[in-house]
Amino acid sequence: MSKTWGGRFSGETDRRVEAFTESISIDRRLYRHDIRASQAHARMLGSVGLLTPEEAEQIVRALGDIEGVIERGEMEFSTALEDIHTHIERALIERLGDLGRKLHTGRSRNDQVVTDVKLWLREAIDAQDQSLAQLQMALLGAAEKNRELILPGYTHLQRAQPVLAAHYFLAYIEKFQRDRDRLADCRRRANLLPLGTAALAGSSLPIDRERVARELGFSGIVENSLDASSDRDFVIEYVFVLSLVALHLSGWAEEWILWATSEFGFLDLPDAYCTGSSIMPQKKNPDVLELIRGRAARVTADLQNLLMLVKGLPLAYNRDLQEDKVALFDANDIVESSLEMAALIVSQGRFRESAIREKLDRGFLDATTLMEFLVKRGVPMRSAHEAVGKLVRTSEERGCRLEDLPAEDFESVAPGSGGEVFKVLGVSNALAAFQSAGSTAPAEVNKRLEYSRRRLGT
Amino acid sequence: MSKTWGGRFSGETDRRVEAFTESISIDRRLYRHDIRASQAHARMLGSVGLLTPEEAEQIVRALGDIEGVIERGEMEFSTALEDIHTHIERALIERLGDLGRKLHTGRSRNDQVVTDVKLWLREAIDAQDQSLAQLQMALLGAAEKNRELILPGYTHLQRAQPVLAAHYFLAYIEKFQRDRDRLADCRRRANLLPLGTAALAGSSLPIDRERVARELGFSGIVENSLDASSDRDFVIEYVFVLSLVALHLSGWAEEWILWATSEFGFLDLPDAYCTGSSIMPQKKNPDVLELIRGRAARVTADLQNLLMLVKGLPLAYNRDLQEDKVALFDANDIVESSLEMAALIVSQGRFRESAIREKLDRGFLDATTLMEFLVKRGVPMRSAHEAVGKLVRTSEERGCRLEDLPAEDFESVAPGSGGEVFKVLGVSNALAAFQSAGSTAPAEVNKRLEYSRRRLGT
Amino acid sequence: MSKTWGGRFSGETDRRVEAFTESISIDRRLYRHDIRASQAHARMLGSVGLLTPEEAEQIVRALGDIEGVIERGEMEFSTALEDIHTHIERALIERLGDLGRKLHTGRSRNDQVVTDVKLWLREAIDAQDQSLAQLQMALLGAAEKNRELILPGYTHLQRAQPVLAAHYFLAYIEKFQRDRDRLADCRRRANLLPLGTAALAGSSLPIDRERVARELGFSGIVENSLDASSDRDFVIEYVFVLSLVALHLSGWAEEWILWATSEFGFLDLPDAYCTGSSIMPQKKNPDVLELIRGRAARVTADLQNLLMLVKGLPLAYNRDLQEDKVALFDANDIVESSLEMAALIVSQGRFRESAIREKLDRGFLDATTLMEFLVKRGVPMRSAHEAVGKLVRTSEERGCRLEDLPAEDFESVAPGSGGEVFKVLGVSNALAAFQSAGSTAPAEVNKRLEYSRRRLGT
Amino acid sequence: MSKTWGGRFSGETDRRVEAFTESISIDRRLYRHDIRASQAHARMLGSVGLLTPEEAEQIVRALGDIEGVIERGEMEFSTALEDIHTHIERALIERLGDLGRKLHTGRSRNDQVVTDVKLWLREAIDAQDQSLAQLQMALLGAAEKNRELILPGYTHLQRAQPVLAAHYFLAYIEKFQRDRDRLADCRRRANLLPLGTAALAGSSLPIDRERVARELGFSGIVENSLDASSDRDFVIEYVFVLSLVALHLSGWAEEWILWATSEFGFLDLPDAYCTGSSIMPQKKNPDVLELIRGRAARVTADLQNLLMLVKGLPLAYNRDLQEDKVALFDANDIVESSLEMAALIVSQGRFRESAIREKLDRGFLDATTLMEFLVKRGVPMRSAHEAVGKLVRTSEERGCRLEDLPAEDFESVAPGSGGEVFKVLGVSNALAAFQSAGSTAPAEVNKRLEYSRRRLGT
Repeated sequence: MSKTWGGRFSGETDRRVEAFTESISIDRRLYRHDIRASQAHARMLGSVGLLTPEEAEQIVRALGDIEGVIERGEMEFSTALEDIHTHIERALIERLGDLGRKLHTGRSRNDQVVTDVKLWLREAIDAQDQSLAQLQMALLGAAEKNRELILPGYTHLQRAQPVLAAHYFLAYIEKFQRDRDRLADCRRRANLLPLGTAALAGSSLPIDRERVARELGFSGIVENSLDASSDRDFVIEYVFVLSLVALHLSGWAEEWILWATSEFGFLDLPDAYCTGSSIMPQKKNPDVLELIRGRAARVTADLQNLLMLVKGLPLAYNRDLQEDKVALFDANDIVESSLEMAALIVSQGRFRESAIREKLDRGFLDATTLMEFLVKRGVPMRSAHEAVGKLVRTSEERGCRLEDLPAEDFESVAPGSGGEVFKVLGVSNALAAFQSAGSTAPAEVNKRLEYSRRRLGT
Repeated sequence: MSKTWGGRFSGETDRRVEAFTESISIDRRLYRHDIRASQAHARMLGSVGLLTPEEAEQIVRALGDIEGVIERGEMEFSTALEDIHTHIERALIERLGDLGRKLHTGRSRNDQVVTDVKLWLREAIDAQDQSLAQLQMALLGAAEKNRELILPGYTHLQRAQPVLAAHYFLAYIEKFQRDRDRLADCRRRANLLPLGTAALAGSSLPIDRERVARELGFSGIVENSLDASSDRDFVIEYVFVLSLVALHLSGWAEEWILWATSEFGFLDLPDAYCTGSSIMPQKKNPDVLELIRGRAARVTADLQNLLMLVKGLPLAYNRDLQEDKVALFDANDIVESSLEMAALIVSQGRFRESAIREKLDRGFLDATTLMEFLVKRGVPMRSAHEAVGKLVRTSEERGCRLEDLPAEDFESVAPGSGGEVFKVLGVSNALAAFQSAGSTAPAEVNKRLEYSRRRLGT
Repeated sequence: MSKTWGGRFSGETDRRVEAFTESISIDRRLYRHDIRASQAHARMLGSVGLLTPEEAEQIVRALGDIEGVIERGEMEFSTALEDIHTHIERALIERLGDLGRKLHTGRSRNDQVVTDVKLWLREAIDAQDQSLAQLQMALLGAAEKNRELILPGYTHLQRAQPVLAAHYFLAYIEKFQRDRDRLADCRRRANLLPLGTAALAGSSLPIDRERVARELGFSGIVENSLDASSDRDFVIEYVFVLSLVALHLSGWAEEWILWATSEFGFLDLPDAYCTGSSIMPQKKNPDVLELIRGRAARVTADLQNLLMLVKGLPLAYNRDLQEDKVALFDANDIVESSLEMAALIVSQGRFRESAIREKLDRGFLDATTLMEFLVKRGVPMRSAHEAVGKLVRTSEERGCRLEDLPAEDFESVAPGSGGEVFKVLGVSNALAAFQSAGSTAPAEVNKRLEYSRRRLGT
Repeated sequence: MSKTWGGRFSGETDRRVEAFTESISIDRRLYRHDIRASQAHARMLGSVGLLTPEEAEQIVRALGDIEGVIERGEMEFSTALEDIHTHIERALIERLGDLGRKLHTGRSRNDQVVTDVKLWLREAIDAQDQSLAQLQMALLGAAEKNRELILPGYTHLQRAQPVLAAHYFLAYIEKFQRDRDRLADCRRRANLLPLGTAALAGSSLPIDRERVARELGFSGIVENSLDASSDRDFVIEYVFVLSLVALHLSGWAEEWILWATSEFGFLDLPDAYCTGSSIMPQKKNPDVLELIRGRAARVTADLQNLLMLVKGLPLAYNRDLQEDKVALFDANDIVESSLEMAALIVSQGRFRESAIREKLDRGFLDATTLMEFLVKRGVPMRSAHEAVGKLVRTSEERGCRLEDLPAEDFESVAPGSGGEVFKVLGVSNALAAFQSAGSTAPAEVNKRLEYSRRRLGT
């Protein structure tokens, strides 16, 4: 009899049912966390007298052995044993007999599995935070490497105003910083121990949950057993945070896919991150970027899966919740590998500076600065906007830049502005004119680069 | 050099990039379809002179060998070879040298992969259709086994009117019939050959796509190469149809989970489809039903994944589309196993007839029939509704059934109805009174059972 | 007493509850369909003797009057009256007294509302089909207007092979044709009358559902009352079909947003479909296209809403289902207006032909044709692919086109190909070389234009 | 000329385009926040010399007047004026002429709209937090009102162990507390001023963003203008937090729908929160609960909408983002009204105590306590589990409770346990036996009630 619960059952479980209900193919990944939690649990049982100290120590050691077995790939996994908890407990009983049968005292799989997942989650969050930091470093590196480079800034994918490439990279550093903040909030909220809430109502045994919490590095215990048994907020919140990361990446990927087109021509992607075509010999495709973009859909779908999964579930544990790990691990792995790829591509992508510079005077990137120049001279903003709009139309008709218009054209909209106006025209002048806090003004960007360096500890 | 496209590349692909971009772990499942399509393609190349007939035959035979190799698990799969197409082509070249290098003539991986998927899809649709038919048979069997059983029918989960259990099972037969209709529509729409549209624009070679279509059992060819290269409608439509199947199953599963509670007490589920608790020795939980319900979220998330994946993608092929198979296979497998489980549970679940009968007079299931009785006697429907509403309130206050009220109470609302009224009171009478088409009237239900038997060919 | 169901209730409904549960703000839109269905129902009641013919006629006329009242905006809507059904029935009772109280005989709001929605749905489907046809006409018009124009075709957003603009427009005609097919399937499946299945079990009155079905143009009746009461497949399927339409539009919109950038420079969008910036005077933004793209997310979310709504709902009607109309109407309206906008923009957008032509020799669009040229001369496809890949690399290094390479370079990969090779080099030659069915070959495109004209009846 | 951007345009905007692109029907709700932000902006312009102090004061006063006009419903809204920003600026210009034309100095609609939304969001978060607190109070009230009531606790919807009703209510208090924590995190992260980042790059004018931030109660400024222009994280995060609230509500609603069935029979819902049937006179349906459950799907779909909306958007502002408010307001309003309803229903629902008590000994709720009793006596947990499993099977076969088994049956599994065992059998004994932290032990529950009272400040 291999199940943990067979006493009241007469029929045998069908093999097809075993295959349908098993989770070992998914949750074997939690073996280290399951063992760690069981060791802490055993020590606690020893400390409160439900085991003798020697018994507790024996269990702890045997669990350590089992960890080694799994680590070395020597554990045989079987869907008949349902899940990782059963596999490990069964191995323990094989080793220790009746003593092994005592480990599950004062706990249930319901609290055990969420404890395992929370232990895994803490590590996962720390790893993603690290990956985000590495991507931020790559962005910072790219900002510094391209310190002087001016890019056309876009809204609606139409050329809008000039921005420093460094300002562009700093924008993504901010986005990923918010993601890191959300990860930290999620970690803090999740870091409460469920173990010992047992199936749904707690236990009549004198277990010491606070002790286990301390040993496992939790900041406290989940205070309500019904809540513990039914709660998957921490899984969902984490996958939500990952969804935002994936969506931030998707926007950046889209941008770089555009920039790597022959039409934009801003970027050279290294061959290593591109693939070719099985039929078109000339192709060099930004596949990695496309997959990063596309997989944002999958992470978001994992979130959707979880949200729909818990809809309308009454308290407390329902088997539906077993499905949480499929979505959790999938979203985690995609974001982890996407972040790694992104950091590499950001580090190794090269701007085609001269091609960018060459076309920089397309799109009237200086029009807004010209308008603000008029505002400074007392023209009401709306009137200045309209006046510049007309100058743009004139330039378009003549096929020239604003700076190519004769001085009179400017005089007519801002009498007395004279030659001054030419000091803000042209992309370089327009860029140099910025001054507001948070703008692309070189001084502002430098300040923020400095700040980011400090924040990232580089 | 193992890739199919290395000529213009200088850098080596990074191993991490290979792991990130590979699809062989997913698409190896398509090997039979890839080989079948390649054989048809080779024969066509032979028929139009791009290969000699002998060359074509050699390729066909070698592909057959390779199929055997894979079948026997002797193919070594490697992420360096990206996908199943490359694995098979590489194996062909190893066997045939330059002749193998000719197979990819007049096609691209873009059209090859959708051809493979469509071949797979046709089989998958047929299998799901078969599974749906089996579930319908199980439902029909249950309907016939419980021919006389009356169940309380519910709206808002409140007892509403009596229905025959057979009528209940027929309702689900209808739902799954619509699903089968949708599958058939999806199959018909998908059954056009993309092969030969090549990368996106077609080919300058004299290939004969109609011939390939005929050989592979397609009803025609995709008529526009740009469309073929970018189209994933057939994947999305299929996963949508699966979503509806999964949601139909989820409603049924919820119902049976309720019916298996000690509170409803309608159903005995066989032990084989339940599991126990690791801590609560008395528990017998309807895990399989819960997983069927829960996994409806996953199928729906797979749909969501696909919908989001294609949003805003310009023509034609983009690498994002590679991700379609993850969602496609996942949704397919879940629904397939859920249908299998559902058919088994429907066949083996047992109604607790006496427990159901015992409580059947709770909830005034005859109230509506009483109202319609009054309507037949000329009371305007709204007035009859109000009158019966008051009789129900009276009964509730007295803690009795409608049939326990004295005749005078009925006289006061429908003068002259006399003893007649008692002929429609009580659940059995109420049920017998039904007569409208599609209702739970025994005659109607029998007619429909007969019809379903014929439709299912039993 | 305003509700239709107050008899058994003692407490008054809370105003906040009325506001929370009302659907009149949403379903008033169904008034015509509700009246049409009620008129058919009344005539049927007359025909089977549940009303006298005169009574039936009186009700039909009074309902006609009420329709006029609503049409003229003179109906006062109130959340206290819950929904459109109650408003109309109440108005009927005000006019006809006890006779009005008879209309609801043999039906329930559960079947009434789905009947109304199905009547509305048929009209909506026909309207969307019309809108799709108009968009197809606009696409066909654009194809014919730009008959000679060659565009760079893309995969991975990298220039791939040349395609005729007409071929491009035909690709979308195909996609929208599949959408129309799906609409037709959805309509056929939905076109069964639910009315007369009453609350969930049918009726004990001698109603004639087939007669009502005929009068209302349904192809038959829903055959199972429990199914009718719980079924929302037709709503979900319709919103799914709309989702695919919206996603097809989103891809096209993305493409045209790209094409309208200064970097691509393919397109001039008419001012009427663009807006400006409140601060940047030079901006002309493709807002309409962006909203079409963005709203695809909303349509898809409407689908998601519906799918999640029905998850785990037991039979039969549950109040959750009331929410279906919010999603249904929202998705319908978005797609309708998006299709209208799309047709206008397709008709009025202008290609910048000379700008396109000027850059057409970028990206080695003729490389694949060159490879196929070598294949025709007996070079194995994979070897030809590699050889051309190297020629592309050489050209890139020299900064020239393939056709600018000396004849020797070609001789070395395909001895004896001599001057012939230059006949397929260059974009126009490459395009002219296509010949496979469904390709961008001019003859193929012409055939398909002809076919589309016939199919669209122009 | 009514638009804010017409200078460079020649064509007129089409009326259909105006209807398609307008947001005034949605964003008029932001008028107070728009005016507040504009007043702060005007004062700042006065302080830095871009306006004279008198001009600034004039604008502030005129904006106050306009607020009154809107408040009193006297503003005429028109789709020709696009959005609330334009309406208010236009009204200002009508009042102040050229002075009004100066207000938009140093800002753009891109930063203006997110500033408005953030101001609105802070209020909305505070209101939701208040609503959550009120629901928690209602739950606490219910916990105290039902202090002694024992409920069957469920896992898998099967009776599991006894729990105090107070413990049940406390579980939801915990869940909603996490929601409040998430709201607080979201508020903190969102509370940075975007105004002054202008279109995407900042401004060349000497504006003082810190001053505006202070006046409007922001904790700082958004530090990167490109980020500000493209960021919708705060909207998405808020709607995510609302989704979790809605899903928590959906679980509770499902539970109470079940508990209000005649089968469970735990609860009496007040008539005011139920509605009847148009055809079945006896029905009393838990419509409000069903709508709360159903609308969780809509809130989740709003989240999905937002996530999909931003997928693959390049920097910075794109018009797609206008759609964010539809989802934001919808989710906010649903959750707000659902929370209000939930608090009312929790307060007014009444447990049917005697009906609950009567059936409390069904389902072997004491089996686990019995097992733990054996564990205390030294039986290894797994062996105890199996032994009790068998006792349960015996009881089931005999149709009796565990406490009805003879002492010998217990002796055989735990020799010497004698009469002691009967002290933990029976539901009341089993409940009294709990002792672990966070369990349903009366002492633990009391401690937690006390804590919750303090936390809620009651």
